[in-house]
Amino acid sequence: MLVKGQHLTTIWYEENNDAIRIIDQRLLPHELKILTLHSLAEVLFAIKEMLVRGAPLIGITAAYGMYIAARENSSIGFLRQSGENLKLTRPTAVNLSWAVDLILDKIINIEEINRPDYVLNLANQMRLADIQACKDIGENGFKLLETIYKKKNSTINILTHCNAGWLATVDWGTALSPIFKAKKKDIPIHVWVDETRPRNQGFNLTAWELLNENIPNSLIVDNVGGHLMQNGQVDVCITGTDRTSLNGDVCNKIGTYLKALSAFDNNIPFYVAAPISSIDFEMKDGLREIPIEERNADEVSFMEGIDENNERKKIRIIPDGSICKNYAFDVTPFKYITKLITEKGNIDANTDSIKALNI
Amino acid sequence: MLVKGQHLTTIWYEENNDAIRIIDQRLLPHELKILTLHSLAEVLFAIKEMLVRGAPLIGITAAYGMYIAARENSSIGFLRQSGENLKLTRPTAVNLSWAVDLILDKIINIEEINRPDYVLNLANQMRLADIQACKDIGENGFKLLETIYKKKNSTINILTHCNAGWLATVDWGTALSPIFKAKKKDIPIHVWVDETRPRNQGFNLTAWELLNENIPNSLIVDNVGGHLMQNGQVDVCITGTDRTSLNGDVCNKIGTYLKALSAFDNNIPFYVAAPISSIDFEMKDGLREIPIEERNADEVSFMEGIDENNERKKIRIIPDGSICKNYAFDVTPFKYITKLITEKGNIDANTDSIKALNI
Repeated sequence: MLVKGQHLTTIWYEENNDAIRIIDQRLLPHELKILTLHSLAEVLFAIKEMLVRGAPLIGITAAYGMYIAARENSSIGFLRQSGENLKLTRPTAVNLSWAVDLILDKIINIEEINRPDYVLNLANQMRLADIQACKDIGENGFKLLETIYKKKNSTINILTHCNAGWLATVDWGTALSPIFKAKKKDIPIHVWVDETRPRNQGFNLTAWELLNENIPNSLIVDNVGGHLMQNGQVDVCITGTDRTSLNGDVCNKIGTYLKALSAFDNNIPFYVAAPISSIDFEMKDGLREIPIEERNADEVSFMEGIDENNERKKIRIIPDGSICKNYAFDVTPFKYITKLITEKGNIDANTDSIKALNI
Repeated sequence: MLVKGQHLTTIWYEENNDAIRIIDQRLLPHELKILTLHSLAEVLFAIKEMLVRGAPLIGITAAYGMYIAARENSSIGFLRQSGENLKLTRPTAVNLSWAVDLILDKIINIEEINRPDYVLNLANQMRLADIQACKDIGENGFKLLETIYKKKNSTINILTHCNAGWLATVDWGTALSPIFKAKKKDIPIHVWVDETRPRNQGFNLTAWELLNENIPNSLIVDNVGGHLMQNGQVDVCITGTDRTSLNGDVCNKIGTYLKALSAFDNNIPFYVAAPISSIDFEMKDGLREIPIEERNADEVSFMEGIDENNERKKIRIIPDGSICKNYAFDVTPFKYITKLITEKGNIDANTDSIKALNI
């Protein structure tokens, strides 16, 4: 999508330099910095410390991580160990396992010397497939927005939580992809952007993406959505997912569940854009089984921003001696989800519909 | 309650200096600063800019504001105008109207020259009555906690939103009063403290109150409560209220509604500590009728804290060019409220029970 009028993606391979390039998303929206990933250690750091984030993007990053690993040592033992290390960086998203296992499955019968090229080729294909899946999610989700617009016939108000835009994928995004499509097709929209504490991906990333695409939006703290829904100021909610279980439970950024409850209470559709790579077909019950990542408490107790001299600054926002707990995700039970938007169509959040995707 | 072992209240009259003294709550938890309110203009500023906040405390502050006004000019015309100005500072809380109207009603037949002393006496009485009401709310709410403890027989986990501790009243608080009582009676408790964006009263005030009273607590961002409730980590929720309508709808700090929905979904009791001064007996339907204060967007886009040199610092946390909307309150429908804790007992959130309080 566009950044100051230029098209950009979140990760790409530069053939001339044999280099994997990413955006350091920790510095957005105040600074746009492109980095090169040189070693597997740098890839692990980039995923764990959220230089890249978003379930689809960390999957693709892991795929390129396997290429970088194969460049270092293409023995199956080393690649298996590298895959394990990649999976451990972020316990909640299933895309890491999906990408690593797909590559390990395919390289077992490839000669060691050919593995680096083979893995690079696979990673490049996965990157292109992610872009296509997101485009298709955009088309499918757009149909839902179009239906709402035909009924309302004035600006539709969409609430989203966290960032599931192109920065969470390679391009287009998941939850924001239908919004970008709507904009291109001239359907009038306005987006309510949840701050998404503690890492503020809504304010830092979603708002920045929407501004760059000239889409009207208003920033709100995470507490506000319920009030807006009670008062007819939200027509539809769309979020992404980090893992979707076979029964249709959705694990997404902490706070998603509260918005789903509020949408349900106010009879507002709650859509989840779910690429098939984020579905865990082996997991029957998301609420009971999905591991919830607990992250460093400093993410809660410190806040970053821009000071009066236009410089980045980190401040402490809690009293001396306080303890924070930092759970990163929650699970929204399937009964609160109106539809899952996938690249293969919009489906109900239940076992039969999800199983049918995997045939 | 205690601050570093010393007993303190939020507002008091110093006879020696004829002075109204308050804590500048904007500076907590990093600095404790006591101020004197000299003029009506200063009182209006203190309420509007939230040097004092919390429905009961702003009611008492308005009462002392009427004394300061009477000291300036004790004509009925001036006092009526002063009362109007006080009411306009914060549109949502009913305590302002309650305090101002109570005083205006009583002084009409008092000679002009005697009015200042008479209003001061009234304000002092209202202050003491607030302390007593909060103590009684503490006793009544404690009974509910005791019942939960008898069943569970281990540490009970209490979630609270915003600050409804002694800093929101004169002493003891509303929602935190039963918690302070439980601590004094050696019932083991742990409190989940919601950050309460955008002004962070949970982190700034509730956590600071609990630390000073040595009550175990953990800070969480506003998105986390639903996840904790799904996973058995919350036994009970208690919040305050800024206005309660006759049908039992509760208007409280934005985000309260989302926590009530989650408590309901997980079968967890949701109690609201509601002093009778916060009940609007004239208002039949809170959801439809309570005006929701929209505050300055800067509260959302800037964040204050302590930098690495231990100095207060304000940073901008949104992208250049973004627009924020800052709604300060939401309404929790009566059906999600398990009990209202009042100084006259714990009652159901419905018209009959609330009417009975006013007899």
